[in-house]
Amino acid sequence: MSLSLEQLIQLRREFHQFPETGWSEFWTTSKIADYLEAIGFQILLGKEIIHPDFVRGRNKTIVEKGIQRAINYGANPKWLDKMDGYTGCVAVFDSGKPGKTVALRFDIDCVDVSETKSPEHRANQLGFASVNEGEMHACGHDGHITIGLGVAHWLMANKDKLKGKVKIVFQPAEEGVRGAAAIAASGVIDDANYFAGSHISFCANSGTVLADPKNFLSTTKIDIRYKGKPAHAGAAPHLGHNALLAAAHAVTQLHGISRHGSGMTRINVGVFKAGSGRNVIPSDAEIKLEVRGENKEINQYMVDQVMQIAKGIAISFDVEYETEIMGEAVDMNNDAELVSLIKEIAIAQPQVHSSDKEYSFNASEDATILGRRVQENGGKAIYFIIGADRTAEHHQAEFDFDEEQLLTGVNIYTALVERLLA
Amino acid sequence: MSLSLEQLIQLRREFHQFPETGWSEFWTTSKIADYLEAIGFQILLGKEIIHPDFVRGRNKTIVEKGIQRAINYGANPKWLDKMDGYTGCVAVFDSGKPGKTVALRFDIDCVDVSETKSPEHRANQLGFASVNEGEMHACGHDGHITIGLGVAHWLMANKDKLKGKVKIVFQPAEEGVRGAAAIAASGVIDDANYFAGSHISFCANSGTVLADPKNFLSTTKIDIRYKGKPAHAGAAPHLGHNALLAAAHAVTQLHGISRHGSGMTRINVGVFKAGSGRNVIPSDAEIKLEVRGENKEINQYMVDQVMQIAKGIAISFDVEYETEIMGEAVDMNNDAELVSLIKEIAIAQPQVHSSDKEYSFNASEDATILGRRVQENGGKAIYFIIGADRTAEHHQAEFDFDEEQLLTGVNIYTALVERLLA
Amino acid sequence: MSLSLEQLIQLRREFHQFPETGWSEFWTTSKIADYLEAIGFQILLGKEIIHPDFVRGRNKTIVEKGIQRAINYGANPKWLDKMDGYTGCVAVFDSGKPGKTVALRFDIDCVDVSETKSPEHRANQLGFASVNEGEMHACGHDGHITIGLGVAHWLMANKDKLKGKVKIVFQPAEEGVRGAAAIAASGVIDDANYFAGSHISFCANSGTVLADPKNFLSTTKIDIRYKGKPAHAGAAPHLGHNALLAAAHAVTQLHGISRHGSGMTRINVGVFKAGSGRNVIPSDAEIKLEVRGENKEINQYMVDQVMQIAKGIAISFDVEYETEIMGEAVDMNNDAELVSLIKEIAIAQPQVHSSDKEYSFNASEDATILGRRVQENGGKAIYFIIGADRTAEHHQAEFDFDEEQLLTGVNIYTALVERLLA
Amino acid sequence: MSLSLEQLIQLRREFHQFPETGWSEFWTTSKIADYLEAIGFQILLGKEIIHPDFVRGRNKTIVEKGIQRAINYGANPKWLDKMDGYTGCVAVFDSGKPGKTVALRFDIDCVDVSETKSPEHRANQLGFASVNEGEMHACGHDGHITIGLGVAHWLMANKDKLKGKVKIVFQPAEEGVRGAAAIAASGVIDDANYFAGSHISFCANSGTVLADPKNFLSTTKIDIRYKGKPAHAGAAPHLGHNALLAAAHAVTQLHGISRHGSGMTRINVGVFKAGSGRNVIPSDAEIKLEVRGENKEINQYMVDQVMQIAKGIAISFDVEYETEIMGEAVDMNNDAELVSLIKEIAIAQPQVHSSDKEYSFNASEDATILGRRVQENGGKAIYFIIGADRTAEHHQAEFDFDEEQLLTGVNIYTALVERLLA
Repeated sequence: MSLSLEQLIQLRREFHQFPETGWSEFWTTSKIADYLEAIGFQILLGKEIIHPDFVRGRNKTIVEKGIQRAINYGANPKWLDKMDGYTGCVAVFDSGKPGKTVALRFDIDCVDVSETKSPEHRANQLGFASVNEGEMHACGHDGHITIGLGVAHWLMANKDKLKGKVKIVFQPAEEGVRGAAAIAASGVIDDANYFAGSHISFCANSGTVLADPKNFLSTTKIDIRYKGKPAHAGAAPHLGHNALLAAAHAVTQLHGISRHGSGMTRINVGVFKAGSGRNVIPSDAEIKLEVRGENKEINQYMVDQVMQIAKGIAISFDVEYETEIMGEAVDMNNDAELVSLIKEIAIAQPQVHSSDKEYSFNASEDATILGRRVQENGGKAIYFIIGADRTAEHHQAEFDFDEEQLLTGVNIYTALVERLLA
Repeated sequence: MSLSLEQLIQLRREFHQFPETGWSEFWTTSKIADYLEAIGFQILLGKEIIHPDFVRGRNKTIVEKGIQRAINYGANPKWLDKMDGYTGCVAVFDSGKPGKTVALRFDIDCVDVSETKSPEHRANQLGFASVNEGEMHACGHDGHITIGLGVAHWLMANKDKLKGKVKIVFQPAEEGVRGAAAIAASGVIDDANYFAGSHISFCANSGTVLADPKNFLSTTKIDIRYKGKPAHAGAAPHLGHNALLAAAHAVTQLHGISRHGSGMTRINVGVFKAGSGRNVIPSDAEIKLEVRGENKEINQYMVDQVMQIAKGIAISFDVEYETEIMGEAVDMNNDAELVSLIKEIAIAQPQVHSSDKEYSFNASEDATILGRRVQENGGKAIYFIIGADRTAEHHQAEFDFDEEQLLTGVNIYTALVERLLA
Repeated sequence: MSLSLEQLIQLRREFHQFPETGWSEFWTTSKIADYLEAIGFQILLGKEIIHPDFVRGRNKTIVEKGIQRAINYGANPKWLDKMDGYTGCVAVFDSGKPGKTVALRFDIDCVDVSETKSPEHRANQLGFASVNEGEMHACGHDGHITIGLGVAHWLMANKDKLKGKVKIVFQPAEEGVRGAAAIAASGVIDDANYFAGSHISFCANSGTVLADPKNFLSTTKIDIRYKGKPAHAGAAPHLGHNALLAAAHAVTQLHGISRHGSGMTRINVGVFKAGSGRNVIPSDAEIKLEVRGENKEINQYMVDQVMQIAKGIAISFDVEYETEIMGEAVDMNNDAELVSLIKEIAIAQPQVHSSDKEYSFNASEDATILGRRVQENGGKAIYFIIGADRTAEHHQAEFDFDEEQLLTGVNIYTALVERLLA
Repeated sequence: MSLSLEQLIQLRREFHQFPETGWSEFWTTSKIADYLEAIGFQILLGKEIIHPDFVRGRNKTIVEKGIQRAINYGANPKWLDKMDGYTGCVAVFDSGKPGKTVALRFDIDCVDVSETKSPEHRANQLGFASVNEGEMHACGHDGHITIGLGVAHWLMANKDKLKGKVKIVFQPAEEGVRGAAAIAASGVIDDANYFAGSHISFCANSGTVLADPKNFLSTTKIDIRYKGKPAHAGAAPHLGHNALLAAAHAVTQLHGISRHGSGMTRINVGVFKAGSGRNVIPSDAEIKLEVRGENKEINQYMVDQVMQIAKGIAISFDVEYETEIMGEAVDMNNDAELVSLIKEIAIAQPQVHSSDKEYSFNASEDATILGRRVQENGGKAIYFIIGADRTAEHHQAEFDFDEEQLLTGVNIYTALVERLLA
């Protein structure tokens, strides 16, 4: 039995109240698993869906804190145990009949923003504001979870009409484009013939669906750390191995990576922290950077150059180093078949009046990694945008969106599945 | 009436219990002023002794906190008012008879160290450990204050035998060599014919006085801050004015300042902090550095080069900048007359068995700025070391020293004054 | 009376034999002036057509040598005198009737290549190879001059049918995009309603005319020179002002100029020369660089950044500096009216079979500066390519082209003028 | 039979007329060999005295040219053959009686200076000026050769009074401190108990001998070459491997090598050459540098840092690299026994009035490599200066020296040998 708009809104507000930052979504994951196991889904968790070698930007302190908090909030110990430290889950629907496999992706993490205390903010008026200070569903991922759950209920209610399988991916850590790579690498959607993902609101208002946004930027987020040896800057500077100086030279080399003849590139070292006191040769330095490229190959050129420089600098200054990929996303072109379908399905919704506007995304989304994985395996993929009016821009403390579009979202996905698996 | 060893120890322990970090010595200063006004000294405070333009490394938050704490601890509001935000005082003794002027300098700040909780530590056993968490008299300046007060009592008790004047300088913020420049620039000791300062313990044990340590290093501590403009690193990087990149290039230029043909130089950028997030062109950067030189002129060469680079970089990257001198000390050669006197006086003390060892200081002390000011005005100066056994090295949480040497210190200073002003 | 193909070929071979590198085309200019004055043109020379402040990359030694050589080769002293050191001329045709003004541009300099000695090379077989060792018309500008002279003869032969004026610009120093800026700045074509320029051969074979090449890159060529002070690297390095170190840091900053959010940029420091001996602090350094931008504004952003860095570095290292713009070109979009005309005219030539291919130029031509000057004054401009088979690529020692296309070129230009001024 | 002053002057002028730059002294070597074989010396040449792996700064073009010139000037083919491309020789005197071995060293190369054409210059007046344009004995090595030959004649004339052996080293390529390392490494003087070398004139006038100059600086001269890949700077900059940019970053890192806590260091990149044109990513770069250190160990620290940086940069920029040691010298302390002897011997010469002045050399001489080799093998070494008035400073086109001091030099050496081997 499908969920009503009121039920969807109720779910969205429940998740809104317990926002969890990337890789700490233990309560959220256990709640999703509770709901979907109850209605018959197989729940895949932990290393079944996460390849640890491809986990990006996962902070152990935050993970520990998240587990503890989930326990305190009454998360189901069974799921916590199976998660094995890794959040997110894949809920598998099997019609029991042979057919295609569809993978749908909903991201579940929040952003690191403190929710407004303004009395005009709906979550404050109705009492569902974040209980986790400094964390807030200010990007609408609470809505994404809700749409995923709505689709799940519909699947079970319509099992008879469907063939094949649906894998609903509840992805952790989309912010910072950190979570998708590990899910892709696990192989859990390698049997998918179709992939669909979406964002609510973004830049579109209620009534508009953007079926074919262009220009997803490939990007990689990298941290570089240098470790040298301290020494007294006055008495024995030659005994030091200067990590700060190494990192400063790394920055000058990184910003000088050559432009690419075939397309746009970007490089930014956004954060630099090094040293403890002015009279000590600094033994530790960390820089946080990102590169971008017009496509996956150009972005990879930038990553290769960064890695080469990180290594060369370590040799020049005789310091140890490590590089860590903290996030990544690629470019993706929607497949024409799915674009046509979404346009057609969307415009058929009573509250939607536009589904064919051109739009340039010009930002990064790691759903692209999952989508391209499916495309590389011979399948088809789409990422689209479900318009929804909003009270403030994404990532702002006053963000809220038109909850009626939750139903629009569920209806588009279910119609899509019906067309693909009926 | 002079103070006994027991009284000196009592005083030292009182100051030990209330350590205050540089530029926050409001309680300490008011206490000294209370004691010395009571026995007839004229007390100079605030801008009478501090030239604000030459104040180095004074953090306003710490100043505010220090004032509030001093009020809470019952500091005399009269002094707090006169201090006008600047700690330290000069206590003036006037014999009433014409004669020379002697300036003596005692530093009064503590270091940023948490005192050990070990039950073996005397301050814990006898209940005079620091009540200010994170601050501790771990460098012996509590002893310095005490010797200064001891000398003050002796002066009043022996006024009849003396001619001329004595100015006892209780200097703030010696740690980081921050306080002396502002006192020198105030002109408060410009009438001095002699200057003497000292350190207790340091590298010498009880029974040894080092009358003529050599090789005080000239040094200047500098902070450089760049302020640019943020911009989105993907969409509009050309609109950013990159402060982090500016600072990184500054570091590479600073470390390349040419060696000096006439003597030793040093440069170290010890701390680098910049940027907020990896997808924003960083608009703020700060680096903390020090330079050193074999003498004042060579050190000034380094400072000039730093200032030139700081400015050039600001132009290259079209960012605003500021440089702040956070501390400074110079080299100084003790005058032979005073070295002879201290050797002679010291060895005459019953508990002292050595006063003529050669010793290379190889570090910085801002008493040198005061000493050279007196020398430049035609006077003579000395800086010496009063040996004292210690339980741990200076700046360590377990530091304590042989309190009997407080009396040695008082006796050397009073004998010196007697020889110079009798 | 118009020139025949044989006459055109004869002229081309004459100019081929006396190639002159940019800003030394004294013989060439005087020859053109002789020919065109003889048939009734007004000849503008020297500062009438060259604004000295915008002259780029003009080497005085080469100029002196060029003048001397032209004298030796029998150049007309009248023209040499009027040129006043600046090569190139504008030949003005006035129909005597009111009407529009058309500016045509033909570049006249050669490249710094030694012509092949191969007996298979036509110029060797027929005895018209370069007599100036190290200089060769290996880019086809001998053909350009010839077409310009052909057009000139036609104009005089057809004066009765024409209204308005034609200004035939014989431009010096196109190689290195050095000559156009000074002509534009002189204002000599500020009354033009139409502008046309072209290249022979380039990438198109006989029978093809490319009427609308796209993607002319804006570019600026810049030299930066630093002048410091030498000093003995062992005894007194601090007395040196290190120009080599300054230039090295300039290079690292230049390559780090931020990408532009709105379009393609390029930066390349292609040459670096500094210093005389390893034991002297180097007092002189020169770097040669170029920047490019997807359009004039983005290119100007790059130039501004270069100038800012050049200056900042000079301050950091306390060295003198100078920057010199050695060449420049801009992007230009052909006007639709002229593109249509050229397509139509070209395809009407018997030997032309294609005039509407799309083509991306992806290089720089300073005719664009003249074309945009006309466009900015409200006129229309075009730059097109006249295909011609060639024996080797442009700038190679074996280069030669299909001389029959000289007539194609003349015919296209004259048909264009007839359409615009009849 | 010993040589008279007139004979010495005659020899000096002969060598003055045929100056040969370092590693091209084929005529000079063959002449020395001719003279000394004739009076009974054993002549060691080529790889007998040169270890090819330690040859520094030897340019093959110059070597080829030197061989050809020596043939033209009539050099003895026997010696040219034995030299096998390596100049210099060791002439061995064996007394036939057991005893100590003394090594004496005389350097034979000229400097790259064109001799003055001034009629006031003695070599022009008397017709013995350099016949090799651009090469001149402007450092007095013609005198050194002559003294060596004078000593050789004396040895043969006094064979009866002597025990043991004398090895007279005629060293090539002292300029640039290039030749000594290869001779030391050959082991040819590993049996020496004593070593002596000297310079004529330098900073001392006739009548003064400096028996114990101090502060020979350790130094190493290094070339670094980077080889990348060219690419078009506009179309495909990412395909280039930028050698110029690599070298520029190398320079910034090299100048930032940390000062050494134990003593003086120097670094200077004195020459930088890279790139061919501004629109090509530069594929070749060369920098020429020197480091110095207060002693051999500190100098080695600098060399190690240079090598580390050279390698790290190659990795950062993915370019090939090579480093070449072009010269080297070390510090050396004269042995007291020999200092006493030289003082005593020198002052005993009628024309010498001073032999015990203190003097700081503050420059580099590769005789130190030979001297320290002997010291490391348990022997004793000295390097001293034989004063001589001069007409201009060393390395100037007008340089000449007081030829009477040739005899002083011979007499000091022969007296020394007599004292050591009698």
